[in-house]
Amino acid sequence: MTLQQFMNEAISPWMREDGPDSDIVLSSRIRLARNFAQYSFPILANESDLESISSFIRDEYEHQSFQDYTSFSFIPIQQLTPVERRVLVEKHLISPHLAEQDHSSAVLISENEQVSVMVNEEDHLRLQLYFPGFQLSEALSNVFELDDWLEEKVNYAFDEKRGYLTGCPTNVGTGMRASVMMHLPALAWTQQITRMIPAINQLGLVVRGIYGEGSEATGNIFQISNQITLGKSEEDIVEDLQSVARQLIEHERKARNRIMEQSGKRLEDRIYRSYGLLAYSRVMESKEAATCISDVRLGIDLGIIDGVTGNIFNELMILTQPGFLQQYAQKSLTPNERDILRASLIRERVKLEN
Amino acid sequence: MTLQQFMNEAISPWMREDGPDSDIVLSSRIRLARNFAQYSFPILANESDLESISSFIRDEYEHQSFQDYTSFSFIPIQQLTPVERRVLVEKHLISPHLAEQDHSSAVLISENEQVSVMVNEEDHLRLQLYFPGFQLSEALSNVFELDDWLEEKVNYAFDEKRGYLTGCPTNVGTGMRASVMMHLPALAWTQQITRMIPAINQLGLVVRGIYGEGSEATGNIFQISNQITLGKSEEDIVEDLQSVARQLIEHERKARNRIMEQSGKRLEDRIYRSYGLLAYSRVMESKEAATCISDVRLGIDLGIIDGVTGNIFNELMILTQPGFLQQYAQKSLTPNERDILRASLIRERVKLEN
Repeated sequence: MTLQQFMNEAISPWMREDGPDSDIVLSSRIRLARNFAQYSFPILANESDLESISSFIRDEYEHQSFQDYTSFSFIPIQQLTPVERRVLVEKHLISPHLAEQDHSSAVLISENEQVSVMVNEEDHLRLQLYFPGFQLSEALSNVFELDDWLEEKVNYAFDEKRGYLTGCPTNVGTGMRASVMMHLPALAWTQQITRMIPAINQLGLVVRGIYGEGSEATGNIFQISNQITLGKSEEDIVEDLQSVARQLIEHERKARNRIMEQSGKRLEDRIYRSYGLLAYSRVMESKEAATCISDVRLGIDLGIIDGVTGNIFNELMILTQPGFLQQYAQKSLTPNERDILRASLIRERVKLEN
Repeated sequence: MTLQQFMNEAISPWMREDGPDSDIVLSSRIRLARNFAQYSFPILANESDLESISSFIRDEYEHQSFQDYTSFSFIPIQQLTPVERRVLVEKHLISPHLAEQDHSSAVLISENEQVSVMVNEEDHLRLQLYFPGFQLSEALSNVFELDDWLEEKVNYAFDEKRGYLTGCPTNVGTGMRASVMMHLPALAWTQQITRMIPAINQLGLVVRGIYGEGSEATGNIFQISNQITLGKSEEDIVEDLQSVARQLIEHERKARNRIMEQSGKRLEDRIYRSYGLLAYSRVMESKEAATCISDVRLGIDLGIIDGVTGNIFNELMILTQPGFLQQYAQKSLTPNERDILRASLIRERVKLEN
């Protein structure tokens, strides 16, 4: 597949499938940080070493397939325009940090976009594997196999006592970051989530917005991930995260039911107003769009809105991002032009459902 | 025609026709205050006198016709439920003051609802005649003929020097109140209307909301009427009002064009957002409804919204009033129940247009 696929489709092929608890958990992700033993970490490495790593990955893995992850594309970051980089970030295929790199940074992406391997980010390699819905164990077992497949040709920097060595000490040990992307509108409205976050932090987990560190929880989407990578096995870390996520799912379901019982008409009104605004607005900022999309998704999940697929939510969340809008327009846009194009794309997408 | 017609149809038959400048002037009205010479004004009259007046009007005019004003219905106020009274007020067929009366108060309404004659309000008789759009002269000439027709059988209280004598001295002389109901959204948004009102007052005219004295200009509807009834002929009073109304029409048109030029996209957005809210809300207060309806009407008048008739505006403005809603439900409703029914009626009405 070509770069065009990654650019033109707002949602990745794997997102089109539903996973368990996908009314609340949008996706599960495991990321592993790995480094070549024979080279310095990217921050210290010289350009020719990084170039060697990048070439090695291209030579060995481009067009290759592993299990369901077929036809890997190898994309050097420096060949991308700023807008194209942004689109890959919005689709969560690369990190904002990688998007800023030049020279020898690259990304390897499977055709179904379920796997991406960032090359020369903070570590030589960062393997990411996504699953739809709540499937952390599945993601973990698959990423392990992917890791083994890569390791057949790469000698990882590994220390018997400390585990995998990484560019930043916060990743040392397992080098693993597991996360779930959760849609928690009821916990957000009732502000329960604000009270829960400190307790979740106490358990060594972090709550962030949809675009990771420092990003706001627009659209009531929260990313929960492990903070600790050392002193615990990957399985234990995933189990802890699963247990917290499971509790959040239960709390969210209870809060949804309570709102339905206590103020169902107001909820229905809010959801349909948001639907009306998405269907008719001519100018819409991204934050309002995210809020309305969140409302409509909740309406679909609660059966209040009929005949609209839940996927519209995942798609619109990405479709309405600044990078994607500019990629669609094939030119850079002022914020006001983006707000107009955003409203127009949303209207067309909503119309498709009718 | 029966009382049911007046109750069940939100807009009066005469409103279905367009008049001149009806993109801005919704209706023109002339009201004449008249009293029987042989009886005291209602405030001082004894019940049996008022009863005599009421019986006289019933006997002489019920089921009668005059020109286009056919089959007059005679409706004693005390036979109406509180909700029915409210509906007649909302349709501007009686005044709020008459709605509070009991005993011998009544109203005579022509089949097309263009003429209503209130009996034993502040005066023995108050003749009202409506025209769609900007047609004050037509209304004046027709109300004069109607007045002559009534005078064939009634000996009016009239003084050579002071003119028609009335219950309240502010009506003495012509006994006439001429008014136009204007939709001035652009002057309201730009707050020009706030600056214009004192100047209009200086000319002996009053600016009020849609339901007369003390009512707010909900839905950007303003009623402009003469304050002075004495010392000027009816024709001069109407001419002064016409001249001010004509200026307001021009200012409103200019303001609309300026907004279209300077922020057309924002205006279009505002109009379509209102349309979306009307089409999808599940709970809506009357003030928000009025604002949204005003926006949509402006959209229709400016050609931004296609395929929707301007009449929807006149109809929804009355349909969404508390009295009409309760008449429709055939029971009294709490404010919250009204907000739900209002949203539901609006949705159905908007759907009819598609």
